[in-house]
Amino acid sequence: MPGNPAVPIAGNRFCIVGGASLVGSATAAELLDHGAAEVVLFDNFAFGSDAAIAHLRDHPRLRLVRGDVMRMADLLRATEGMAGVLQLAAYMTLSMDRDPWSGLDVNIRGVQNALEACRASKVAKVVFASSNATYGYGPGVAGELVESTPFHSQGAPPAAILYGATKIIGEQLCRDAHRKWGQDYVVLRYSTVYGERQHYRAANALYIIETLEKVRRGESPEVFGDGSETKHFVYVGDLARANRMAFESAATDVAVNTSGPAPMTTLQLVEMVTELAGGGPAPRFVGNAPGKVRLTSGGAFRIAHEAAFAAIGWKPEVDMKEGLRRLIAWRDSNEGKAA
Amino acid sequence: MPGNPAVPIAGNRFCIVGGASLVGSATAAELLDHGAAEVVLFDNFAFGSDAAIAHLRDHPRLRLVRGDVMRMADLLRATEGMAGVLQLAAYMTLSMDRDPWSGLDVNIRGVQNALEACRASKVAKVVFASSNATYGYGPGVAGELVESTPFHSQGAPPAAILYGATKIIGEQLCRDAHRKWGQDYVVLRYSTVYGERQHYRAANALYIIETLEKVRRGESPEVFGDGSETKHFVYVGDLARANRMAFESAATDVAVNTSGPAPMTTLQLVEMVTELAGGGPAPRFVGNAPGKVRLTSGGAFRIAHEAAFAAIGWKPEVDMKEGLRRLIAWRDSNEGKAA
Repeated sequence: MPGNPAVPIAGNRFCIVGGASLVGSATAAELLDHGAAEVVLFDNFAFGSDAAIAHLRDHPRLRLVRGDVMRMADLLRATEGMAGVLQLAAYMTLSMDRDPWSGLDVNIRGVQNALEACRASKVAKVVFASSNATYGYGPGVAGELVESTPFHSQGAPPAAILYGATKIIGEQLCRDAHRKWGQDYVVLRYSTVYGERQHYRAANALYIIETLEKVRRGESPEVFGDGSETKHFVYVGDLARANRMAFESAATDVAVNTSGPAPMTTLQLVEMVTELAGGGPAPRFVGNAPGKVRLTSGGAFRIAHEAAFAAIGWKPEVDMKEGLRRLIAWRDSNEGKAA
Repeated sequence: MPGNPAVPIAGNRFCIVGGASLVGSATAAELLDHGAAEVVLFDNFAFGSDAAIAHLRDHPRLRLVRGDVMRMADLLRATEGMAGVLQLAAYMTLSMDRDPWSGLDVNIRGVQNALEACRASKVAKVVFASSNATYGYGPGVAGELVESTPFHSQGAPPAAILYGATKIIGEQLCRDAHRKWGQDYVVLRYSTVYGERQHYRAANALYIIETLEKVRRGESPEVFGDGSETKHFVYVGDLARANRMAFESAATDVAVNTSGPAPMTTLQLVEMVTELAGGGPAPRFVGNAPGKVRLTSGGAFRIAHEAAFAAIGWKPEVDMKEGLRRLIAWRDSNEGKAA
């Protein structure tokens, strides 16, 4: 049982479970930039992609391990000698809808396996990627969302509720590990992530890409409802920093929100993407998209990130305009075009 | 896919998964009394007991099947030819604390397996035993608890949150089955059950037995805190009736609370048990019991059961005084002494 929950980055080794991903690749770069002795990207490439990590593959201190969170042996080997493990591997809502059996396995048993592997390998600290999905969906989700806000589920699609509930369970498995064998950990409740190397699996973040592509084709971007629905994204680089700071800080046994500087409305988002894309037709207001899993909230909300500052000294630095500018620049780059 | 979600009891066959239990045995008797052609009690006897079903074992239309919800083949055989399945099998909070791996398996994968078996066996209707644990614990749980009340978890023990989250997931697996293959189902959110053949696994119901035993020994029963904490129990016979009516009603794709006539405070409960036990010393007010999983709420609450009446025509009939009188009479009977 470690005496001090702070794990310095320089000279230490880290494993990122579910590492061939948007957040995984950005965090790997962040840890390597801060002097990590080695970063292991552990992934089964079910959702992870070579494209997401292409820019890192030749890094001398990066190691790629093909493995599965459902195979304990894979995790035991990958966590050997690691000071910290970042647990990212998860099914999100869209994939949970298609395959709830695998989704529940990965999001629950996968976390149990990762925690048990960390115990066996004496990993000092775990950072678990939770989600603002722990506050749920629907009419109840409004106002200031703080860490004690309950989970609202009334009226939400089953897959969304399943996803949120698995994140609640993952957090509790961390707490249980802390109580039972003193496992130090920090839970970060990510809000919707966007940025360079954006994937196509998150219902909310996908909307940015869809909007951009429509604008680029000269089509009207679609706004569902009246456009007043809240979005509160977080830039991937800010999250990579949050993961790094969660390891470095003395915080343990705590769960905090990591959201961007400020929320915005769907209409504001679409207007901002249109402007940054160099202009385009006015948005088209449409009803609900049939056949799509859509996640709605009850009214204006803001995901408070002040507790993260208190716990790990983190606050978001990149606002939506700058983050979207970077995302669009990446999409226009050779790497983005190939992705 | 059945056209009419109403499943009459008379002449039909029913399987109770987790049947060798307090609620299972009472529901079996209820279904047999209403003319069920056969009732199958499916249980692995991990928690279920021979004692819980001893009074039923010679019934000509009752069949006991030793099987495990984690073994699909067992479930496929047990559900063959069944018109209805009642899914009771679950780890509760105390056992979830001891073994979260098995608890999450049984409460999640067990429900998935049962639903898949029902699909394969063309079972017309599933009744899933959920819990008021879907409203959670702690400061947020106060006032009128209705079906849209969110899940509060701040400050609750990990095992309690895990238990509640698995019940939320079980409900969503039912909804998902309804959406994906038209499985008719009713979710009943049981409040804490008590009554004849009381077991020793539920943190709240156990308190009744502990209080009774202390009073009978001439010791002061213990009241935690100031005694104002709310308890809202439901009598097992009322729940058996709710399960039966959930099958019989045309309701489907719905989740409703099934609680007793009214809540009471811990102090009222202790005083009532003392009175019914023939009197005894005054209660002793103590702090929290060390090492025990205790589930607290934020203030006075009532679990509303009006939606159950609207959906399946059910309301509770047995009040605490009558229910406790029956429980104590059973404890004093030969069967109760042997249990």
